[in-house]
Amino acid sequence: MKIAVLPGDGIGPEVTRAALRVLDALALPGLVLFEGDVGGIAYKRHGHPLPQETIDMARAADAVLFGAVGDPACDDLPREHRPEQAILGLRSELGLFANLRPAAGWPGLEDLSPLKPQLARGIDLLVVRELNGDVYFGAKGERDSDGGREGWDSMAYNEAEVRRIAHAGFRAAQSRRKRLTSVDKANVLETSRIWRETVIAVAADYPDVELDHMYVDNAAMQLVKSPGQFDVILTGNLFGDILSDQASACVGSIGLLPSASLGERKTEYGTFGLYEPIHGSAPDIAGQGKANPLAAILSLAMLLRHSLGREADAGRVERAVAQVLADGVHGADLGGSASTETIAEAVLKALE
Amino acid sequence: MKIAVLPGDGIGPEVTRAALRVLDALALPGLVLFEGDVGGIAYKRHGHPLPQETIDMARAADAVLFGAVGDPACDDLPREHRPEQAILGLRSELGLFANLRPAAGWPGLEDLSPLKPQLARGIDLLVVRELNGDVYFGAKGERDSDGGREGWDSMAYNEAEVRRIAHAGFRAAQSRRKRLTSVDKANVLETSRIWRETVIAVAADYPDVELDHMYVDNAAMQLVKSPGQFDVILTGNLFGDILSDQASACVGSIGLLPSASLGERKTEYGTFGLYEPIHGSAPDIAGQGKANPLAAILSLAMLLRHSLGREADAGRVERAVAQVLADGVHGADLGGSASTETIAEAVLKALE
Ligand SMILES: CC(C)[C@H](C(=O)O)[C@@H](O)C(=O)O
Ligand SMILES: CC(C)[C@H](C(=O)O)[C@@H](O)C(=O)O
Repeated sequence: MKIAVLPGDGIGPEVTRAALRVLDALALPGLVLFEGDVGGIAYKRHGHPLPQETIDMARAADAVLFGAVGDPACDDLPREHRPEQAILGLRSELGLFANLRPAAGWPGLEDLSPLKPQLARGIDLLVVRELNGDVYFGAKGERDSDGGREGWDSMAYNEAEVRRIAHAGFRAAQSRRKRLTSVDKANVLETSRIWRETVIAVAADYPDVELDHMYVDNAAMQLVKSPGQFDVILTGNLFGDILSDQASACVGSIGLLPSASLGERKTEYGTFGLYEPIHGSAPDIAGQGKANPLAAILSLAMLLRHSLGREADAGRVERAVAQVLADGVHGADLGGSASTETIAEAVLKALE
Repeated sequence: MKIAVLPGDGIGPEVTRAALRVLDALALPGLVLFEGDVGGIAYKRHGHPLPQETIDMARAADAVLFGAVGDPACDDLPREHRPEQAILGLRSELGLFANLRPAAGWPGLEDLSPLKPQLARGIDLLVVRELNGDVYFGAKGERDSDGGREGWDSMAYNEAEVRRIAHAGFRAAQSRRKRLTSVDKANVLETSRIWRETVIAVAADYPDVELDHMYVDNAAMQLVKSPGQFDVILTGNLFGDILSDQASACVGSIGLLPSASLGERKTEYGTFGLYEPIHGSAPDIAGQGKANPLAAILSLAMLLRHSLGREADAGRVERAVAQVLADGVHGADLGGSASTETIAEAVLKALE
């Protein structure tokens, strides 16, 4: 079992280190770790936020454990050299087309949500976002026009692209409450029309899952008004970017939210994927030992489940995290004062 | 002074009628009203949701008072014949490029918000959404690809388009708390890069307005986490569609939210524009006399202010609405039982 570890920038290395201590405690047989540079640190060392050797290392692994990228020192670089481009590059180079972002309130922590407690308590959803297509990877550029310089981008989805992410969404729904809401803007976009028609076709394979469709503007409204109505939200790259962040904000505890980005490639143990916390590199608190490592640790749990086929270990880690939270070991982001180190130790203890 | 009245579908006619009673009570000198068909009703009567004569009537007026469009009976029509296309057609035919959507909690009604009261109380923002460009009006279609049928859309903004909406945004900010947040996705889109560069250039004309930039995913997060930070949100057509609905949902009382869509054409009294409630045609409660007419009445107030230059009358109408709400005359959407008629009467009484 090979894991490529890409700690990245800011608090990325701190929270990744904590996750690795948890991984170490699980004592998985035959585990090999590689560490690579990504983001601002990679740009500093190699002149590119996503060096070829990092891509190769990730490709050779069964899974990638990713920290965070983003460094204010890189703000003035041209776009292609900025740290955040590394994650876009990894998604496309590694064919990671399915982004899974669970958003659920933790029992006892509903108060962190900006929503009223009765609404916050009801949130238990999974955003399944397509990651390899849409306006993210279409042709784009600048051209002259009657109105001066014009910026343009192209958006597209074909049936094959929608089909594979739809299958991922329906399968996820089957393992949950069996409801899937497909979000698009089919009243305006041709991309969305194909999206919707294809999702409807795929739905025939999942008669046990209840499907409905929502326009993205309405979905953004419903996510605030009654988030409890959602089980799986299936959507494209751009709408998924917006709605998944909105869903995280509704939960309130971003420091606790993990994510998985899965590809098509099967490994010996599961599906190849990249795992990272939702939170960013938080340069303002980097190096101070106060980042909450729980999102990284929960991302590790997703890695164990999806890429290494270690469901039991994944469950152990998740239960340990729940224990730590219930014990009131809370980082600054949860209104507590526990350090990265303290939280990591508490998880290790709860694992015993 | 000429107003084209387009009541549309569902509760559109009911709430528009209530707004017209208020207009009548103001007894504006030399006012002429025309009434036209739009939406599902226009499709039924003329075979098109936006007949040419409706466009002509709107063009000949100083302002358009619009109800709502949308009719489930039209769900199976091809996209170009659906009622909602009428509003897209009006925006482009009439050059209505600036959509103003204020979202603010009403004193005493913060409890309607899904957000915690301390957050809800802080909401007082205006979304300024571009309405004539972006992926809405770019070339689009279906083509064959290796992955089967492919839907595609094109997105673009040029400097002239961004400049005119940016001016509208900055001017609005000057009359408010002098803060403007421009929302884009400049880390991914070329359209957004031109958007951002142009907004920065326009900002030089408004040294008294504080400008910042936010990526759309972060904006969707911040709108839930701390909506009180926003004064004016300036954004493109697609992101504005999503964020303005999200902002409305945060306020909680959609039945109270008006909107204005302004063009470049100056009339004798102000700027040509179209005014409509945020809420839709609500076919489920149509014809029952229980729709809340306050969003339509507040849309009329915006019409008086922007298109007819009647600031004093606009203020009178808004104060009357505030009075009615404070008096506890609440429709079903606010948890009360007042009918459309009762609410309209109360506003008329408060106007006296
Ligand atoms: C950094 C950025 C390009 C990226 C995206 O838009 O996908 C981020 O917002 C995310 O959601 O992972
Ligand atoms: C009906 C639809 C085409 C329209 C839009 O997307 O602009 C609506 O959502 C709106 O915001 O007015």
